[in-house]
Amino acid sequence: MRKGRTIFFENAPKISATATVAGPKECAGVVGRYADVPLVDDMFGEDTFERAERKMLLTAVRKSIEKARLTEADVDFFLSGDLLNQIISASFTARATKLPFLGIYSACSTMSEGLLLAAVLTDGGYAEHVVAATGSHFSSAERQYRYPLELGTTRPPQSQWTVTGAGSFVVSAKGEGPAITCGTCGRVTDFGVSDVNNMGAAMAPAAADTLLAHFADTGRKPDYYDLVLTGDLGALGSRLLKDLLWEKGVDIGENHVDCGEIVYKIVEDEFQGGSGAGCSAVVLGSYIYDKLQRSGLGRVLFAATGALLSTVSSGQGETIPCISHAVAIERTDARATRGEERL
Amino acid sequence: MRKGRTIFFENAPKISATATVAGPKECAGVVGRYADVPLVDDMFGEDTFERAERKMLLTAVRKSIEKARLTEADVDFFLSGDLLNQIISASFTARATKLPFLGIYSACSTMSEGLLLAAVLTDGGYAEHVVAATGSHFSSAERQYRYPLELGTTRPPQSQWTVTGAGSFVVSAKGEGPAITCGTCGRVTDFGVSDVNNMGAAMAPAAADTLLAHFADTGRKPDYYDLVLTGDLGALGSRLLKDLLWEKGVDIGENHVDCGEIVYKIVEDEFQGGSGAGCSAVVLGSYIYDKLQRSGLGRVLFAATGALLSTVSSGQGETIPCISHAVAIERTDARATRGEERL
Repeated sequence: MRKGRTIFFENAPKISATATVAGPKECAGVVGRYADVPLVDDMFGEDTFERAERKMLLTAVRKSIEKARLTEADVDFFLSGDLLNQIISASFTARATKLPFLGIYSACSTMSEGLLLAAVLTDGGYAEHVVAATGSHFSSAERQYRYPLELGTTRPPQSQWTVTGAGSFVVSAKGEGPAITCGTCGRVTDFGVSDVNNMGAAMAPAAADTLLAHFADTGRKPDYYDLVLTGDLGALGSRLLKDLLWEKGVDIGENHVDCGEIVYKIVEDEFQGGSGAGCSAVVLGSYIYDKLQRSGLGRVLFAATGALLSTVSSGQGETIPCISHAVAIERTDARATRGEERL
Repeated sequence: MRKGRTIFFENAPKISATATVAGPKECAGVVGRYADVPLVDDMFGEDTFERAERKMLLTAVRKSIEKARLTEADVDFFLSGDLLNQIISASFTARATKLPFLGIYSACSTMSEGLLLAAVLTDGGYAEHVVAATGSHFSSAERQYRYPLELGTTRPPQSQWTVTGAGSFVVSAKGEGPAITCGTCGRVTDFGVSDVNNMGAAMAPAAADTLLAHFADTGRKPDYYDLVLTGDLGALGSRLLKDLLWEKGVDIGENHVDCGEIVYKIVEDEFQGGSGAGCSAVVLGSYIYDKLQRSGLGRVLFAATGALLSTVSSGQGETIPCISHAVAIERTDARATRGEERL
């Protein structure tokens, strides 16, 4: 069933397992306690950053399948994408696993696009188990999108730091785990920001657009959720999002958290927090998933955000098109407790 | 319903309209008579090749919606990707249309991945109308993947020519048009080819893998189809595919055609034919779709093929991972006539 841009999953597919790999800088923060594979060296034993990124992704994928007590033969589809040109991390991971592979790209909102499509495939009866995964690496992203690392370029205060990490989610038609109850597809939004160091400002309108659509389509209000979790707006972008929604009469001040804002212990004069496809994948797949399983959190609206630029589009004078996809993840008992389980 | 890697679409979503834009070199060939927008200038009035590529894609998308007698407000999802880094042609097209957008990437098999997912969304009741589209431009691809155009590099005889063109398909839950009856998801296959000028050889094993899975999952034989249409293997790749299948006891010699092989009037000593995401999108969306609607062709198995390399992966010594997704497109009356309508 669908209303507007929101798909309702009547069979409520479950996130039966997650697995995350996180770099050393990331493990110093909130995800350190929860990451399945914390790295002490961001090269992960490889000789290039790109190979390290792909090894993180493959490790997360295999670990998640293992944690779901499945084998690769049980997985019907693998949905993945990443920030590198031609999503090579995802494609090479798919080569290593031999899983039936559907490549996706939504920049840093790849995780929520993956979860949305995984839910469609399982809810619709087309698959028993789907793996959705993504990741990023600070050094491979930096040298592809910005400057050679050897330059030691000074980072402006509005910038964010690409997370080194990967997250993988097993979405199952049946079984245990928090359910994906609905998802809202994003539209490309562009408010004319062209500063490639200010992704938070570029992406905030996309998050606002999707959240407004989600609340309108579902009839829910922000306080329906224990947590509205955006992907990597960072500190500045998060404030912009709250303002943009406030202007429309929607207040998410009480229960909004941004993965990019919490992933590092940030000093805001230096930079705005984490970004990258791996940012929200790691935070949701470790810290938040643990809370969804064990305590406190009953209902999370996960809205990752992505900036769909390339170095060529920026070089040719284009502004930054952005998108945000959202999925609602709910604990079944939380729904029962609250008694608001209508979709 | 699914068996192995093949999804069966019990509600048989229809391809209610297609639209294609093709460059001057392409219009000299078989698609010239059928393209909705034949170009006399491959710049399409723009100042960069990348902008021309995106204008082709946007034009094809809008034209297909118009031909389906819909407006953009009727389209529930837009699935698209392309060869440029970070799929900017698709993202900027999504920005211009404001359609709910799901970015996909499967290199030159993007068209069949898009049709597969469009069929899932419509068959599953999640959408009324989905647009799936892709395109490519010789000059933007050449300068991104290979050499600056100004170099005038000599092309080796095993090379292919990236098609300048775009194709867009409207997939509808109900209505008229040939139906997508099933689809087989590809796996990444890599036989160790590292010559980036020999895509046909790299991709042939991926096509063979998917076709074998398709025939095994469906119980169909090649002669079930009037046409087994691969994407852009070119002349050499097509011969390799036939040989690979022949070794497994499957003969597609009688009814196999490759979009890349037929799109140009090729002189095989010079090069192997067309390639690029736009190649199969344009051939299927114009010439073949016309035959599916008006005459002869009743059942087509469309298996586009993609090479998932990047300049970085090749530069770091990797071989070329490839994939092929297949969708079966069948005219309803053809199914009735033949009486083999079991799925």
